[in-house]
Amino acid sequence: MKKIETIVLVADLAGTAVFAAEGAISAMQGGLDLLGVMVLSFAVALGGGVIRDLLIGATPPNAVRDWRYPALAFLTGLLTFILHSEARTLPAPLLMAVDAAGLALFAVAGAQKAMSYGIGPFISTLMGTITGVGGGVVRDILLARVPMVLVADIYASAAFAGAVVLVVSRRFGLSPMAAALLGGAACFILRVAAVTYGWQLPKVTHW
Amino acid sequence: MKKIETIVLVADLAGTAVFAAEGAISAMQGGLDLLGVMVLSFAVALGGGVIRDLLIGATPPNAVRDWRYPALAFLTGLLTFILHSEARTLPAPLLMAVDAAGLALFAVAGAQKAMSYGIGPFISTLMGTITGVGGGVVRDILLARVPMVLVADIYASAAFAGAVVLVVSRRFGLSPMAAALLGGAACFILRVAAVTYGWQLPKVTHW
Amino acid sequence: MKKIETIVLVADLAGTAVFAAEGAISAMQGGLDLLGVMVLSFAVALGGGVIRDLLIGATPPNAVRDWRYPALAFLTGLLTFILHSEARTLPAPLLMAVDAAGLALFAVAGAQKAMSYGIGPFISTLMGTITGVGGGVVRDILLARVPMVLVADIYASAAFAGAVVLVVSRRFGLSPMAAALLGGAACFILRVAAVTYGWQLPKVTHW
Repeated sequence: MKKIETIVLVADLAGTAVFAAEGAISAMQGGLDLLGVMVLSFAVALGGGVIRDLLIGATPPNAVRDWRYPALAFLTGLLTFILHSEARTLPAPLLMAVDAAGLALFAVAGAQKAMSYGIGPFISTLMGTITGVGGGVVRDILLARVPMVLVADIYASAAFAGAVVLVVSRRFGLSPMAAALLGGAACFILRVAAVTYGWQLPKVTHW
Repeated sequence: MKKIETIVLVADLAGTAVFAAEGAISAMQGGLDLLGVMVLSFAVALGGGVIRDLLIGATPPNAVRDWRYPALAFLTGLLTFILHSEARTLPAPLLMAVDAAGLALFAVAGAQKAMSYGIGPFISTLMGTITGVGGGVVRDILLARVPMVLVADIYASAAFAGAVVLVVSRRFGLSPMAAALLGGAACFILRVAAVTYGWQLPKVTHW
Repeated sequence: MKKIETIVLVADLAGTAVFAAEGAISAMQGGLDLLGVMVLSFAVALGGGVIRDLLIGATPPNAVRDWRYPALAFLTGLLTFILHSEARTLPAPLLMAVDAAGLALFAVAGAQKAMSYGIGPFISTLMGTITGVGGGVVRDILLARVPMVLVADIYASAAFAGAVVLVVSRRFGLSPMAAALLGGAACFILRVAAVTYGWQLPKVTHW
C-alpha cells in the first residue's frame, strides 16, 4: 500500500471511531433505543465518507467495500452505549476538542482521497469539507432539526480551511504526510479557536 | 434469467407495491395533494432499493434502469388515491402485517442482491436492512419528522435479523429459495411478534 | 461539442445561477450566516443535477467533474449576500417568474441528459422532474421543513409536464433545440399560470 493510501486509511478510521462515539451520544441524548444508537453511530461515522465516495465515483464506497469501517462504527457505538455513565461525565471542552480532531481527520482524508481520484483542486477542497461535515448533517436530518453546521459558528469553514491548506501544500510540493499534518492542524486550531473566542461569520440580521 | 435473480425480482416488485400503497396512505394522512401522493409512493417504494444500488455500485439503480419499478409504484399510488375510502377502512393489524411482509421482502431481496454483487456477508446484512427501512426513512425525512425506524420498537432490527438469517443460510449451503423463505419468515415473525407483545430494545433513560 | 450537449450545458448553467440566488435568499430569510448562505446556494443550485447524475450513473456528477458549476453557485451566492439590500426589494412576481424559468431549464436539461445516457423515455421524464425539484427538496430538508414541492400548487407537475413535452417532441423527430424550447415553454407557462390562477391538484380532504 502506498504511503498516501495509508494516511487516508488511518485518518479515516480514527475519524470514524470519534464520530461514531459522538453519534451514539447524540442518540442517547435524543432518547433513542439501542437500535437508534447503532444507526446514528453508523450515520455520523460513515455518512460523510459515503457521500464523498459517491460523488467522486469511488463506488462501492469504502464503508461498503471494507467491513472494518462499519464494524468499527458498530463497536464504538456499542461501547459508548455500555459505558454511557462514564461518557456522560466527560467534560464539554474535551468533547469539543475530540470533535475538532475528528473534523480535521475527515477534512484531510476527504480532500486527499478526492485528489487521488483525479478531482481538481477546487472541488477536492469541497469534497474534504463534505467528508468532514456530512456525517453531522445526516445526523441532524435524522433528528429532524436544522443541521448544526448551517447555524454554528465556524465549523464547516474550519474543515474547508484545512482542506485548502492540504491542497495548496500538495501543490507547493510538500509530501502527503506533511501536507496532511499541516491541513489537519489548520482545521483543528481554527475550530478550537473559534469556539474559545466565540468567532462568528457575518450574517444578514434583518431580512 | 437465473433462479436467484427471479427471486430478487419478484420479492422486489412485491415489496414495491406494498410500500407504494403505504407511501400513498401516509401522504393522504399528511394532507398532501395528488402530486404529494405520487412522490411519497415513489419515495417509500423505491428509496430503499435506490440507496442499496448506489451503495453497492449497481448503477443506474434498478428503479432507473427498469421502467416496471416506477410504473408499479406510480400505479399503486394512483390506485390507493382513487380507492382511498376503501383504504381508510382497512384494519390496523392487517396494515401492520402487510408492512411486515414488505419489510421482509425488501430485507431478503436487498441482502441477496448485495451478495450477488460480491459484497461480503457482514455488509450484505446491512444492505438488506437499509433496503428494508430506507424507503420509510426517506418518507419521514420528507415529512420533516424523526424517522419512525429510530424510535419504534423492533423494526430495523427485524430487517437485520432476516438478512442475517438469509446470509447465514446461504453460507450453510441452503438454496437461494430456501434461504430467502427462511430469512423472510424470520423478519416477518419477529416484527409481528414485537408489535403483538410490545417488545422493546434497551434504552438509556435519563441522559 | 455536439449541439445537444451545448443545450444541456447552457440550460444547466443558467438554471444553476438562478437557483443559487434563490438558495442564498432562503438562507438569509432563515437567519443563516455567510457559510449557511454558501451551503444553501450550492445545495439548491446543484442538488437536483447531482441526484440525477448519481441515478443515471453519470459519475462523478457534473457538479464534481466540472469546477464551473460549483464556482458559479459560489459566486452567485456570494453576490446575492453582498447585494442583499437590493435582492430584498425584488418584487415577488419577478422572483416567481425567475424561479419558474430555473425550473423549466433544469427539467429540460435533466430529461435531455437522461435520454443521452440511454435511459428510457418514461424514466427520463422522471429524471427531468427530479433535476427541477431536487435542489428545492434538499433546501427544505436542510431547513427541517416539509418540502414545498409536496404541498405547493402545481410545481413538480409543471416540471414533469415540461419533461414529457421534451421527450415526446424528440420522439416525433423534433430537433433537440426545438424540443427543449417547447418543453421549457410548457413548464414555464404551466407554472406561471398555476400561480396566477391558483390552480390546485385534487386532494383527499378528511383522512
